[in-house]
Amino acid sequence: MEIVNLDHMSANPLLPEVQDAMIDAIKSNYGNPSSQHRIGDRAAEALDQARDSVAGLINSSIPKEVVFTSGGTESVNHAIKGVAFARGDKGRHIVTSNIEHNAVLRSIRRLKMMDYKVTSVPVDQYGRVNPDDVAKAITDETILVSIMHSNNEIGTIQPIEEIARITREKKVLFHTDAVDSVGVVPIDVQKLGVDLLSFASNTFYGPAGVGGLYVRRGVGIWPLLDGGVQENNKRAGTENLIGIIGMGVAARLAAQDMEKRIAKAKKLREKLLRELPDYIDEYFINGHPEHTLPNLASISIKYIEGESVVLMLDEEGIAVSTRSACAAGALQASHVLLSIGRDFADAQGTMVITFGEDNREDDVDKFLKVLKSSVNTLREISPLFNKKASAA
Amino acid sequence: MEIVNLDHMSANPLLPEVQDAMIDAIKSNYGNPSSQHRIGDRAAEALDQARDSVAGLINSSIPKEVVFTSGGTESVNHAIKGVAFARGDKGRHIVTSNIEHNAVLRSIRRLKMMDYKVTSVPVDQYGRVNPDDVAKAITDETILVSIMHSNNEIGTIQPIEEIARITREKKVLFHTDAVDSVGVVPIDVQKLGVDLLSFASNTFYGPAGVGGLYVRRGVGIWPLLDGGVQENNKRAGTENLIGIIGMGVAARLAAQDMEKRIAKAKKLREKLLRELPDYIDEYFINGHPEHTLPNLASISIKYIEGESVVLMLDEEGIAVSTRSACAAGALQASHVLLSIGRDFADAQGTMVITFGEDNREDDVDKFLKVLKSSVNTLREISPLFNKKASAA
Repeated sequence: MEIVNLDHMSANPLLPEVQDAMIDAIKSNYGNPSSQHRIGDRAAEALDQARDSVAGLINSSIPKEVVFTSGGTESVNHAIKGVAFARGDKGRHIVTSNIEHNAVLRSIRRLKMMDYKVTSVPVDQYGRVNPDDVAKAITDETILVSIMHSNNEIGTIQPIEEIARITREKKVLFHTDAVDSVGVVPIDVQKLGVDLLSFASNTFYGPAGVGGLYVRRGVGIWPLLDGGVQENNKRAGTENLIGIIGMGVAARLAAQDMEKRIAKAKKLREKLLRELPDYIDEYFINGHPEHTLPNLASISIKYIEGESVVLMLDEEGIAVSTRSACAAGALQASHVLLSIGRDFADAQGTMVITFGEDNREDDVDKFLKVLKSSVNTLREISPLFNKKASAA
Repeated sequence: MEIVNLDHMSANPLLPEVQDAMIDAIKSNYGNPSSQHRIGDRAAEALDQARDSVAGLINSSIPKEVVFTSGGTESVNHAIKGVAFARGDKGRHIVTSNIEHNAVLRSIRRLKMMDYKVTSVPVDQYGRVNPDDVAKAITDETILVSIMHSNNEIGTIQPIEEIARITREKKVLFHTDAVDSVGVVPIDVQKLGVDLLSFASNTFYGPAGVGGLYVRRGVGIWPLLDGGVQENNKRAGTENLIGIIGMGVAARLAAQDMEKRIAKAKKLREKLLRELPDYIDEYFINGHPEHTLPNLASISIKYIEGESVVLMLDEEGIAVSTRSACAAGALQASHVLLSIGRDFADAQGTMVITFGEDNREDDVDKFLKVLKSSVNTLREISPLFNKKASAA
């Protein structure tokens, strides 16, 4: 069965150019960039070239500000724990938001077990942080603010520039988890004014298990991985060169094709939202109507379980998600949806659709058709729906 | 120029079967093992299969005891910091040896900045730890012993089983850095009796930037990477599936071909050591004559700089190393060589030769010939050598 992939956030397919570059790297047997002889020279060159491409994608003018990691999760852990440990004697207070990804949430929870204090600011009904709340949360003990750039469940983009103005004025470091933004929307670290920014290669059709952390020059953080002198002494360990080469090519293409990709995703998303009322009723669209990722739509459908819809769609060869793959297996309702005011039942009835380069308009048509019949079937057996129907 | 690679420890070439499996994985676009739909199913299967192969290589009977990481450095950091943080309230004392790899050394140095205490036991002239010294170093505060399985600069293999008997009796966790052993010599975690064991894929011709940490069932350690529920809740982050698939195939082949590989490496190493006196004089062979890696030879040549020999050999298309690639760029004399009693000058005159599957006997011949002329040239300009010569 040909599968319609509407869950690109779980796994973007590799672009053909990325595949070719990685296959070429595999066949080339590049060696170790740190070795002392010529076998390592080509490896070091390939590493530099990838770093230039990735720095270009986020408009860092100093490629060494990019530290290659094993993915978004490591980048986030490195940023948060690296700052917390390096500055622990200056203060032990961290400010974050209520709707962060688990990598941020659990890194910070870990630090709470080590006597760090946390203030988590709320978000409005669209999932947006109010920069004034961040300003008010910062104390003399605050060493770090970590607010995500865009949310992976509802797509809302935060006012990062405004928050960065506050953190700069208050001389507090600012990390943004931009894992779902880098390569999808324009990201300019100089314009944003952040100190640390996490990203992942697979978001822009590079390989999974590869990512990066932007560390503004002069920002002192501890490595998460101690050992050799790789990555400018910021991250020890022999590099995943094949993956990094793939990320480099993916970064170059993302920068080059960004406008085209955004236009395509927007068109699919708008079609979906425009036609959805013709297929189902009683649902919410989550997230901000304007400050949003172009490729993500979050829909809370009343009187159903999102998990059941996902299974029924899967039966028909359509891949969607109830939330990020990282949280699959966790049974609680999404903290993001509860934070924007959805109740438990509506949160459970939520689906996240993420579009990608391989989608076409008829993927939306097929999805809507199957969604309609799935929702109808599920509502027929839903006690909540039947209660409501008999009360009417 | 055809390059003779006698520095396999820096980077082993990928085996053809590993290349094929990785290329196939790249073309297959497996998806995310954690996703909720069928795109992820094949990814999850591929991940399981790789885990079975890797568990087989170290004779773990419970594949979930293997946690995939981004390489040896992450494995070591995870083991040491993960135990230190999880058990910090029970005690803050760690026992290690004087000749550990930088990943261990610097992880522990990092913990010293966080109020952990360390006892480092010495080694004998062959680089071996005396288990009695470990027993004596353990106090009521000790939470972890970390002693490497084999040394990456001199090849010496430690009496891990004997040490494990002590740590078990004293109820202290035992981690061994087996990065240069797993896939090279038989490793049986059940027989060794260790609680944690680090390894890296590239040691056995898998891709760099991929590794694993064996965590014996029941051993509670904190994740280094907090976030999603991947790797049985022990290591968050979307997996580097392409790399892991490569490691799985490499592990299967390493288990299957181990005897043959050891025999081959031994033969080359013995030829080198047997014929060396015909080419140069005044040198030491470092490491234990019997308890040693079969594929490594460490030679300290008097009155020369190892770095200069490496450069001259490189000019002739022969790759060797003065020490691990991770430490290249560091200018200090090797702590390993100083620990076994070499003086500073002899430590600087050291070369590490590591054999691999692609070497042939005439590689040794070529190396010896070029080594002889390089050493002669360098000694002619060496003030130390000339002083000695004029004194004679």
